[in-house]
Amino acid sequence: MEIIDGTVVDVKLGGNVKIAKFVNIYGCSLGDNSRVGPFVEIQRGAFIGRNCKIQSHTFICEGVNIEDDCFIGHGVTFINDRYPRSTNGAGGLQTEEDWDLIPTIVKRGASIGSGATVMCGIVIGENAIIGAGSVVLKDVEAGTIVAGNPAKFIRRINE
Amino acid sequence: MEIIDGTVVDVKLGGNVKIAKFVNIYGCSLGDNSRVGPFVEIQRGAFIGRNCKIQSHTFICEGVNIEDDCFIGHGVTFINDRYPRSTNGAGGLQTEEDWDLIPTIVKRGASIGSGATVMCGIVIGENAIIGAGSVVLKDVEAGTIVAGNPAKFIRRINE
Amino acid sequence: MEIIDGTVVDVKLGGNVKIAKFVNIYGCSLGDNSRVGPFVEIQRGAFIGRNCKIQSHTFICEGVNIEDDCFIGHGVTFINDRYPRSTNGAGGLQTEEDWDLIPTIVKRGASIGSGATVMCGIVIGENAIIGAGSVVLKDVEAGTIVAGNPAKFIRRINE
Repeated sequence: MEIIDGTVVDVKLGGNVKIAKFVNIYGCSLGDNSRVGPFVEIQRGAFIGRNCKIQSHTFICEGVNIEDDCFIGHGVTFINDRYPRSTNGAGGLQTEEDWDLIPTIVKRGASIGSGATVMCGIVIGENAIIGAGSVVLKDVEAGTIVAGNPAKFIRRINE
Repeated sequence: MEIIDGTVVDVKLGGNVKIAKFVNIYGCSLGDNSRVGPFVEIQRGAFIGRNCKIQSHTFICEGVNIEDDCFIGHGVTFINDRYPRSTNGAGGLQTEEDWDLIPTIVKRGASIGSGATVMCGIVIGENAIIGAGSVVLKDVEAGTIVAGNPAKFIRRINE
Repeated sequence: MEIIDGTVVDVKLGGNVKIAKFVNIYGCSLGDNSRVGPFVEIQRGAFIGRNCKIQSHTFICEGVNIEDDCFIGHGVTFINDRYPRSTNGAGGLQTEEDWDLIPTIVKRGASIGSGATVMCGIVIGENAIIGAGSVVLKDVEAGTIVAGNPAKFIRRINE
């Protein structure tokens, strides 16, 4: 593993992982050969498989499970709370006990285009491609391309 | 207040503020108990109230006023100039004298979803929720949810 | 040139360039008087002209050519690969030999609004304005404003 000036704490790292400068990565798992660009935050409880590329400016939260061979573009944002609030009803800041974490799964070989926002509670199917700048609100079928806000089916992939 | 390796200059800080690593925050105001994530820039003249959460990768510019108890998601971008240009008519770079700053107000308890872009000159009403990835071009009524590009009314909130 | 705590390697710099803290800039070219904000990555082979403003959180990849006097907003993401994948057919990570770089040109004086995503293989015409949060998928005519996802013609500019 190779890190320069980043903050990488309590991470389960596979072999040959490369992590760029200026990152905040903690309490998660990164599989063999995966790459992480600069200005990336990966939170506690996120899971990233082998041979993944996590590009610059991306945010991966707790509850996100990215399988092997996935491409996560630049400036991609995941979500784990449908109706986020800063405070709870009692007037204090919300803590982990005040909301239910909703998981997201990115299946093997999928690619998420740069600038995409991915809502929680969904599954991105194997080898699917999410178009750049899309806002993904529901499941994406394996082997298909979706794009837009909200993201809609564009076509099947013939690779 | 707790800062690690960030750049925090000339900021009026309330009590118990927490600021992550890798930030650029200057000349602004942050109220009691507020939290700021990594890779955040907050510019001179921005105002952030108490009990706010400003998540990673967010940009808050001069002219933005965020009241108490607001949630600002990851990768949220505010704006203070409708027609930005790099240079002025005289061939030099634009300076503050070449454009009019247009303010934005986020009222108490509002939540702005991750990946949203918020145009200037608008008011986000109390407890409103902006959907993830939205582009907000006009005022948002208190107690409502809006989403999309451009953001449109989805429904009233029953909390 | 003025850099603080950034990573700037092998860059061809004009006079009076200013670069903020927390950047990752390498193997590219930045013309006279240009400004670069924090949390910006500019990759090898990108070209940025004179008098440009590259705002915070922006990603400029190889193959992007930005002419003089351009404004690139906050959180703007460029792209150089239409169908990105993490791995090649042989099971290893993709390298530069596994894909064709597709260039993008931003002509003199154009402004790209904050939060925009710009697909590759297109030309943004002289003095054009891209609305905030837009996803630009095709050429933009000189002197026009486009906006939306996908970005569409809004009107001609009368300046």
